[in-house]
Amino acid sequence: MLTRYTIGVDFGTLSGRAVLLNAESGEAVASSSMAYPHGVMEHALPNGTPLPPQFALQHPRDYIEVLAWVVRDVMKQADVSPEAIMGLGIDFTTCTLLPIREDGTPLCFEAEYEGEPHAYVKLWKHHGGQAEAERTTEVAKEMGEGWLAEYGGRVSSEWAIPKIMETLNRAPGVYEAAARFIDAGDWLSLLLTGQETHAAGFASLKFFWGYDRGYPSPAFFKALDPRLEHLIGTKIPSEVQTVEEIAGVLSVRGAEMTGLREGTPLALPIPDAVAAMPALNITKPGVLMAVVGTSGVQLIHAKESLSIAGICGQIRNGVVPGLYTYEAGQSAVGDIFDWFVRHCVPASYYEAAHQENCNIHQYLRARAQKMRAGESGLLALDWLNGNRSLLQDADVSGMILGLTITTRPEEIYRALIESTAYGVRAIVDAFEDGGLSIGEIRASGGIAKKDPMMMQIYADVLGRELAVIDSDQSAAHGAAIYAAVAAGLYPTLESASEALSVKEKTVYRPIAENGRIYSRLYAEYKRLYDYFGRGENNVMKRLRRIAEGEGNHEIGT
Amino acid sequence: MLTRYTIGVDFGTLSGRAVLLNAESGEAVASSSMAYPHGVMEHALPNGTPLPPQFALQHPRDYIEVLAWVVRDVMKQADVSPEAIMGLGIDFTTCTLLPIREDGTPLCFEAEYEGEPHAYVKLWKHHGGQAEAERTTEVAKEMGEGWLAEYGGRVSSEWAIPKIMETLNRAPGVYEAAARFIDAGDWLSLLLTGQETHAAGFASLKFFWGYDRGYPSPAFFKALDPRLEHLIGTKIPSEVQTVEEIAGVLSVRGAEMTGLREGTPLALPIPDAVAAMPALNITKPGVLMAVVGTSGVQLIHAKESLSIAGICGQIRNGVVPGLYTYEAGQSAVGDIFDWFVRHCVPASYYEAAHQENCNIHQYLRARAQKMRAGESGLLALDWLNGNRSLLQDADVSGMILGLTITTRPEEIYRALIESTAYGVRAIVDAFEDGGLSIGEIRASGGIAKKDPMMMQIYADVLGRELAVIDSDQSAAHGAAIYAAVAAGLYPTLESASEALSVKEKTVYRPIAENGRIYSRLYAEYKRLYDYFGRGENNVMKRLRRIAEGEGNHEIGT
Repeated sequence: MLTRYTIGVDFGTLSGRAVLLNAESGEAVASSSMAYPHGVMEHALPNGTPLPPQFALQHPRDYIEVLAWVVRDVMKQADVSPEAIMGLGIDFTTCTLLPIREDGTPLCFEAEYEGEPHAYVKLWKHHGGQAEAERTTEVAKEMGEGWLAEYGGRVSSEWAIPKIMETLNRAPGVYEAAARFIDAGDWLSLLLTGQETHAAGFASLKFFWGYDRGYPSPAFFKALDPRLEHLIGTKIPSEVQTVEEIAGVLSVRGAEMTGLREGTPLALPIPDAVAAMPALNITKPGVLMAVVGTSGVQLIHAKESLSIAGICGQIRNGVVPGLYTYEAGQSAVGDIFDWFVRHCVPASYYEAAHQENCNIHQYLRARAQKMRAGESGLLALDWLNGNRSLLQDADVSGMILGLTITTRPEEIYRALIESTAYGVRAIVDAFEDGGLSIGEIRASGGIAKKDPMMMQIYADVLGRELAVIDSDQSAAHGAAIYAAVAAGLYPTLESASEALSVKEKTVYRPIAENGRIYSRLYAEYKRLYDYFGRGENNVMKRLRRIAEGEGNHEIGT
Repeated sequence: MLTRYTIGVDFGTLSGRAVLLNAESGEAVASSSMAYPHGVMEHALPNGTPLPPQFALQHPRDYIEVLAWVVRDVMKQADVSPEAIMGLGIDFTTCTLLPIREDGTPLCFEAEYEGEPHAYVKLWKHHGGQAEAERTTEVAKEMGEGWLAEYGGRVSSEWAIPKIMETLNRAPGVYEAAARFIDAGDWLSLLLTGQETHAAGFASLKFFWGYDRGYPSPAFFKALDPRLEHLIGTKIPSEVQTVEEIAGVLSVRGAEMTGLREGTPLALPIPDAVAAMPALNITKPGVLMAVVGTSGVQLIHAKESLSIAGICGQIRNGVVPGLYTYEAGQSAVGDIFDWFVRHCVPASYYEAAHQENCNIHQYLRARAQKMRAGESGLLALDWLNGNRSLLQDADVSGMILGLTITTRPEEIYRALIESTAYGVRAIVDAFEDGGLSIGEIRASGGIAKKDPMMMQIYADVLGRELAVIDSDQSAAHGAAIYAAVAAGLYPTLESASEALSVKEKTVYRPIAENGRIYSRLYAEYKRLYDYFGRGENNVMKRLRRIAEGEGNHEIGT
């Protein structure tokens, strides 16, 4: 009998990546990636129209081109025919939102809107609707909207409603012309199957939708803006699909787009952050997934609806049927180390790294690794890009303490690494305080594989075994597992994950002596965390106000 | 009539510098400097004997060679004969202590002691007697010694008694063989005149002596160690000379050593920190002298004995007859910026500096200068080498807060500069809280002349006019003014300073808008100063204990 395969495609910030999965053995047979031709548009549209600050747009045609290429490429690499592909799955960044016509055509494809920024895709990190986000928070608070607590009490400009309001306010013609505002994952699903989806993962995380309670009321939307009263049910579909459902099967057009067979099942699209969970075989409560990359994400399933202070997202029936999935995050992890090596490391270190044939991170790590825990006397707060969990506060900032005139770059580098580990521990403790028990931690992400020193520090700081899963494409791998379930090859996501998840892993076990030292250091971190983060001393916020020039012209202070 | 001159020689940490002063016009006619041939011996003695950590020794022969060279050199440069030199003055680092024989011969000149570290000069920054310093503090506290408050409540290993106790404990033979333990300034005075001095400046700052109360009691010294009961009156002279007196006149030997006339008056030796005060014409209360160099010193005269919290030294009749002189200090200023440029600035900045034909400090300054006060959102604590005033605590450390992934090196550089300005403001405020009124600030030191941006920041932060005195050799210039008084050319130090002080200066006036911003930033600094420095959160000390490995092996925390 012919071996059966599935394909998962992960649409990230800069590129799309496909994995061809042997749906029997779980082997990732081939993978392929392609950068979006237009990348992230931050300064100008393709026709030269300049963009305001805080904009981050994408071109939807890029997704089609990337999909067409990577799917064909993995089949070609492995010499597998479309007949052997039993299902397709996709995951996508969110909220990555675009306005479309009734038939699915993005407005930006039309000549009339070629020079209109709001007609393009607003990438998840588009921050143009900051004022609208603040207004949304205010209105929700005034009206006592209960769902606000599920979102950490504060609306981000990265979410759907502020992005739509921004369009309404700045480009009302685009708002009028749009039949739908749709997350890019759902849009691809529409193109591929001809059927519209609004997947629970996107709706839960970014559209204020909850499985048990639905959307906020029309009265709430009306209070935001009278023109928004009937937003749900018109420009946003009122129906939401949960993860038990499939998106549909490939239409003729979907088959042409991908080179797959017409009728190939397509799994419900899924947010990229959670897509890797099945690839790490995390489909039950009790196991934390830690993504350690440019930023940090922590995900865990639970049977119950819990109120967990400072946790920014929850999804019911959007990742694993029947379970709640809780999401926390760190605004910057790898971005901190990149900042450090670019701006704070002297030439002599780069020269030495060059002579030792390693990159600067490897060089710093080799030196930092020789130090004992706590040896540098340094302690940092990892808030150089704000704090997502547990503070949900973009206005706090980073801190380094314990500096002396003998402090060396590798010591600061290690202290920054340690600070991100403390940040994860604060989140893990919050999950546990909220009623979840965490037995094991599985890590993935670019840094998790590259930096064994950091992963040992994480194990020591967290006091738990940490298994780093050996996959470069865990999100695409997870999407392919969803595809295997959608294709009916496995009866449940649990059984598919058991069979098809990535088995190769490196396990880091906590070292007791380091753990004792890190417990003491973490206590110091937590005390400063609360001092600077929870209102005892709001110096970080006041410094930002001063930096912005607020009040500088008043007489006296 | 022949123009009359005096010579001042400033013995610093690495070199000695002479100024030839026209004692009528105040013009510095010539200057000369020579590095000590043995420099600072930190790793080994000249014969190769290795030194323990924390040691910082010097070779007394270096002082003789440097004195001989620089005095002759300035006369030669200006073509001035010894007959025209009316007086000689010297200032010296303190406590820079050596054991000598009755006739003044340093023990280390004898073959028997050639390989004995304790027979050499212990430089002011020799820290080998840390345990002895701690014991001295303890005993003084137990015995309720009132003088301890004048020294900030804590004995430093840099002072005389811990240095002598260290010799007693580690090299009792040297202790036995020493007729005297003498500050190097007094030792030179002994060599030059044949008469022993123990100048009030040294005795007040480093030997626990007070003009009004004399030395601590024999009972105190006995409690330190029974062998020390009669230290005062034997190995330390009980008589102390105040600044009204002169050291003596050059003996035949003194004339040979210097190339000056026998009988040339020698002023009482003076600590290097205070020597510059007459050169800046600071001989009355109300004017603060700020030395801005590798470290920071703040000095001010007063008519009264005041108790000023956190101020580390006071001298009566040791600098200006009839006045008290109070000294505060910052453990690191320029050392912080040097640390920063060596370890925290990337190659691209050095390349750009090279292309712009400036050094790295100039390059960073040029970029930092373009920023508004407060623009970076950064705030630092300037404790990278501990805090001398007002905390007298070597265990606190530096901190930087407000970091983001867009923070640039020039922003950190400026924040570090600002932190040292806040440090001076804390000291100025303490002086004023203690009852002193400060009308004007005069600055000298290497950085004061080189960095106009920093001096403007100081003026803005302090809210006062700041006059930077244009002299590279203000200490030697001051020593030459003392020489003019010793020679009888002027009836008082005040009149001599009025006539001979350096007149060239650059005045920085506070800019009101910057002052308003810095008031707000200083309030934040002060709050963190108290929080981290005064016991509310002793995290800096605990991090040091962890770094030293203390308690790391205990079970739990």
